[in-house]
Amino acid sequence: MQEERLPLGVAARLSRYLQILTQTKKSGKRTISSQILSEYSNVNPTQIRRDLSAFGKFGKRGVGYNVDYLIGRIKEILHTSGQHNLALMGSGNLGAAIASSRIFADHGFNIAALFDTDPAKVGQRVGNLLVRPLSEVGETVREKKIIVGVLAVPPAAAQAAADLLIDAGVKIIFNYSEALVDAPPGVAVHSMSPAGELLYALYFYLT
Amino acid sequence: MQEERLPLGVAARLSRYLQILTQTKKSGKRTISSQILSEYSNVNPTQIRRDLSAFGKFGKRGVGYNVDYLIGRIKEILHTSGQHNLALMGSGNLGAAIASSRIFADHGFNIAALFDTDPAKVGQRVGNLLVRPLSEVGETVREKKIIVGVLAVPPAAAQAAADLLIDAGVKIIFNYSEALVDAPPGVAVHSMSPAGELLYALYFYLT
Repeated sequence: MQEERLPLGVAARLSRYLQILTQTKKSGKRTISSQILSEYSNVNPTQIRRDLSAFGKFGKRGVGYNVDYLIGRIKEILHTSGQHNLALMGSGNLGAAIASSRIFADHGFNIAALFDTDPAKVGQRVGNLLVRPLSEVGETVREKKIIVGVLAVPPAAAQAAADLLIDAGVKIIFNYSEALVDAPPGVAVHSMSPAGELLYALYFYLT
Repeated sequence: MQEERLPLGVAARLSRYLQILTQTKKSGKRTISSQILSEYSNVNPTQIRRDLSAFGKFGKRGVGYNVDYLIGRIKEILHTSGQHNLALMGSGNLGAAIASSRIFADHGFNIAALFDTDPAKVGQRVGNLLVRPLSEVGETVREKKIIVGVLAVPPAAAQAAADLLIDAGVKIIFNYSEALVDAPPGVAVHSMSPAGELLYALYFYLT
């Protein structure tokens, strides 16, 4: 049976809940209320209960949701129980920060390769990763079945780094730089927008 | 005349448009179509036209929106034309990456102080910033009228860093760590969720 694709908004919120639930579990908590989930996600509790009730009876009145169970169910719904390889472009401060964090590993994303354009950096190690030259992007992406590329490069280098990844077959570009990145149909670009988020936060402080 | 507060969704989208328009302007383009704005923002073009038409006649059929004019109007609407000081917690790889980027400066956010808990780092310079000890958070926040605190610290240190900032009077915590951060009423916490965003992107790739 072909299941229906989730609407964009639902998929975005479930992804966010999953990230929060994973952190909640790490902190040792076994249950979570929709109120607490609301505080961490900035989604209102009614919306949260609606999102979750669409997938069966999750919560218990007065006890909250079972964290483990909810993680399992959302992973099933999002089809994200597997492991996925990603390529990290840029071994500067930001690249090194990403390489040494568990932020992706906790969700099944394995940083399989690290690339840099700087000959002085190529061949060095950043954490467990060897810095590779850009000339190896194509071969490495195909060999390691990498479908996600993360851009941790200066804005002026972002498009060229994205193009290399896309030519090699990467389907999702995750852009940490503030530059705008173009991609052909069939390739999704997701840009972190910390400045945009900060403007948004400030608006509600100022008004 | 007291104007009405924008709904959350509208404010979030306008903030995102503003970030994209600022980058578009930097790249030398003077107009932008709702189609292009849609591709960069992942908001559909109909929604974009609706958001923008609510604030007057912006676009010209076949020519698109004037980038400068739109930036000016959105800044007015979001009340974000001013300069705001922020404090950056953590001078490791991530802190150094943020300190050296223009990602906040382009939107009027000035990194006014950088703090670290490591005595070996205190007194060093990261870019133009002197690394200060945590004991100076309170005084510095009050002196420099800092209302935003950015957490670029390991997950285990995030809550303590947030508490210091909140005690000093910071009203917006911008959390780059994957840790969940609690705050009292009146203080907004915004967490970057790269793993959540990546799960979301992956869902649409896998289904």
